[in-house]
Amino acid sequence: MNYVLKNVPERTEKPRSRGYTMAMDKGLSLREVQDFIDSCGDYVDIVKLGWATSYVTKNLNQKLQLYRDAGIPVYLGGTLFEAFIIRNQFDDYRRVLEKYDLAYAEVSDGSITLDHKKKCEYISILSQDVTVLSEVGSKDAEKIIPPYKWIEQMQQELDAGAWKVIGESREAGNVGLFRDSGEVRQGLVEEILTKIPEEKILWEAPQKAQQVWFIKLLGANVNLGNIAPNEVIPLETIRLGLRGDTFDHFLDLSNC
Amino acid sequence: MNYVLKNVPERTEKPRSRGYTMAMDKGLSLREVQDFIDSCGDYVDIVKLGWATSYVTKNLNQKLQLYRDAGIPVYLGGTLFEAFIIRNQFDDYRRVLEKYDLAYAEVSDGSITLDHKKKCEYISILSQDVTVLSEVGSKDAEKIIPPYKWIEQMQQELDAGAWKVIGESREAGNVGLFRDSGEVRQGLVEEILTKIPEEKILWEAPQKAQQVWFIKLLGANVNLGNIAPNEVIPLETIRLGLRGDTFDHFLDLSNC
Amino acid sequence: MNYVLKNVPERTEKPRSRGYTMAMDKGLSLREVQDFIDSCGDYVDIVKLGWATSYVTKNLNQKLQLYRDAGIPVYLGGTLFEAFIIRNQFDDYRRVLEKYDLAYAEVSDGSITLDHKKKCEYISILSQDVTVLSEVGSKDAEKIIPPYKWIEQMQQELDAGAWKVIGESREAGNVGLFRDSGEVRQGLVEEILTKIPEEKILWEAPQKAQQVWFIKLLGANVNLGNIAPNEVIPLETIRLGLRGDTFDHFLDLSNC
Repeated sequence: MNYVLKNVPERTEKPRSRGYTMAMDKGLSLREVQDFIDSCGDYVDIVKLGWATSYVTKNLNQKLQLYRDAGIPVYLGGTLFEAFIIRNQFDDYRRVLEKYDLAYAEVSDGSITLDHKKKCEYISILSQDVTVLSEVGSKDAEKIIPPYKWIEQMQQELDAGAWKVIGESREAGNVGLFRDSGEVRQGLVEEILTKIPEEKILWEAPQKAQQVWFIKLLGANVNLGNIAPNEVIPLETIRLGLRGDTFDHFLDLSNC
Repeated sequence: MNYVLKNVPERTEKPRSRGYTMAMDKGLSLREVQDFIDSCGDYVDIVKLGWATSYVTKNLNQKLQLYRDAGIPVYLGGTLFEAFIIRNQFDDYRRVLEKYDLAYAEVSDGSITLDHKKKCEYISILSQDVTVLSEVGSKDAEKIIPPYKWIEQMQQELDAGAWKVIGESREAGNVGLFRDSGEVRQGLVEEILTKIPEEKILWEAPQKAQQVWFIKLLGANVNLGNIAPNEVIPLETIRLGLRGDTFDHFLDLSNC
Repeated sequence: MNYVLKNVPERTEKPRSRGYTMAMDKGLSLREVQDFIDSCGDYVDIVKLGWATSYVTKNLNQKLQLYRDAGIPVYLGGTLFEAFIIRNQFDDYRRVLEKYDLAYAEVSDGSITLDHKKKCEYISILSQDVTVLSEVGSKDAEKIIPPYKWIEQMQQELDAGAWKVIGESREAGNVGLFRDSGEVRQGLVEEILTKIPEEKILWEAPQKAQQVWFIKLLGANVNLGNIAPNEVIPLETIRLGLRGDTFDHFLDLSNC
């Protein structure tokens, strides 16, 4: 840090086991990737190339190399996995992971209907080759999954080999964990946490109010995802209680 | 494309006669223009320098040269045309087009009251020198133009020499084709399409939900405009049915 | 300007005594700073490193040097001042200003409760070393300060040595001068202006509608702040009556 402030929550350091920030790259140019790494590299633990943007991205190999050189793993959005599955192209998907030398993959069913046993099989197969993040929650605002189902599915997916489970949100911060307004489904989150260890969950929380809510609930080192590149620095200050939103939250004035 | 996915809608390629993407540059730096071209050049057919931003843009000549070298035509926003017209400076406007060697121009009346015959005269005069895009629709939320008038004006402007007609939206995605909420005036669009050939219309649709709506109605290769530079890659995936919003739309599962 | 338009309001030029634009850098990379300076340097009078982002910013010295070389002063967000104050680290704060050779500082109490006499003392002490901007208004939407109090505090802070007083808004454009919806508290602004000279006030107005409102009330050369870097060019066109929103406002058609 650039100067000393007392009484600031301790942040984990890379490589982190908690306090992950997953950023979403939805089409950065190569130079923007380089800029992003230079200014935020220490604060970003993993990058997702959003949904199927990798399909149309120019210079994909060079982009992946930039992240690789910076020690930041990359995975392709779950919607891409689903696009291969619905076309009966699972083997082709595995070849894509191989071709681009990817060490992480996401398994999700946000846009398709997938028997949950089958989903766990995909997790199991892929986790032999790569580190799997599996995602629970639909992108369809009409499909409300009750909390006990979220928990059941998360547990089964972890058992099948998922490294972490992701709580779904759209890039815009709605559906899944959130109401249409972007408001957190608080009861859902709290019930999940009674059963699934916090460090196994990556919460997608693109909106500031959502990030603040999770940080207030779970502390500076909660795992958060779908963070826009230009919000990584702001998020870091929220984690540290150095933005208005969490300013009072971590302060123990008896120490000052 | 970076890998093979079956059953993806066919996109037209540059130079396109349909499936245009018009992106809005509202003040990119030269390096940002270069980045934008490198990462999105194949997906951008034409760039608008939004409203009168060209008036205050530094290094305008170099910016135009970058786009020119990339084979991407540029035009100045219609509000600039109107700023010249309301000041009785039409001849000065023509000199600006000449000075900057612009091959396209927009004629609009979103912020001024312009007799429609006079508007068509401007289209006719300018189309002798440049390719004209003419825009229908007011920036004033109070001025509701009934559908038959939209159609009449569009037809007359095409007859006067306009290459394409633009359906108006603000940068923020309201007024013109849209309600204050950003919702599409669906009846208006459908009625227009009964009379004006789709390929002659460029729909300004800056919000994702608006883009999705037009793509679902008119397919992957609808002409869309006012796309923010960092939304060009996401738009391309929506066109291809590779984002949650249009995931099911193009799929013919009997082929999979 | 790139071409001649008649009847455009006169803008002050740097170094400006009125018509300030304060831009907020909330984590730009070094290359983005360079791009920002190249494309907008003439239109930016002062830059704020938002809240405590400077704490986690990489290469802070190089960033400050880039702005310094461009002749653009920089100050650290008021929330950082408050973070030092609430930790009883005022002397450390002064050392930060010295270490980074900063010529400007903000004194605020948006997130802490600070006796107003004490606040004025801080202004007085700091203004011996640096140019002080002091901010009035809370970040807490519940804390409504009545207009007479705003005026009283602004006057006392100017008397204590503040160079200008800032009317508070969050980055998102709510609280302080604005209602939750982002709407301007018009009566408040008008009452303030009966007592405090306009050129002594910097209005934080990140939303376009807010900028338009202030420009319509106070003209092209009103002091505005919390402008996002990519909104500086658009703001300049609004000031000049060259965007739809203020298109008619400055026009005297008898001159055309």
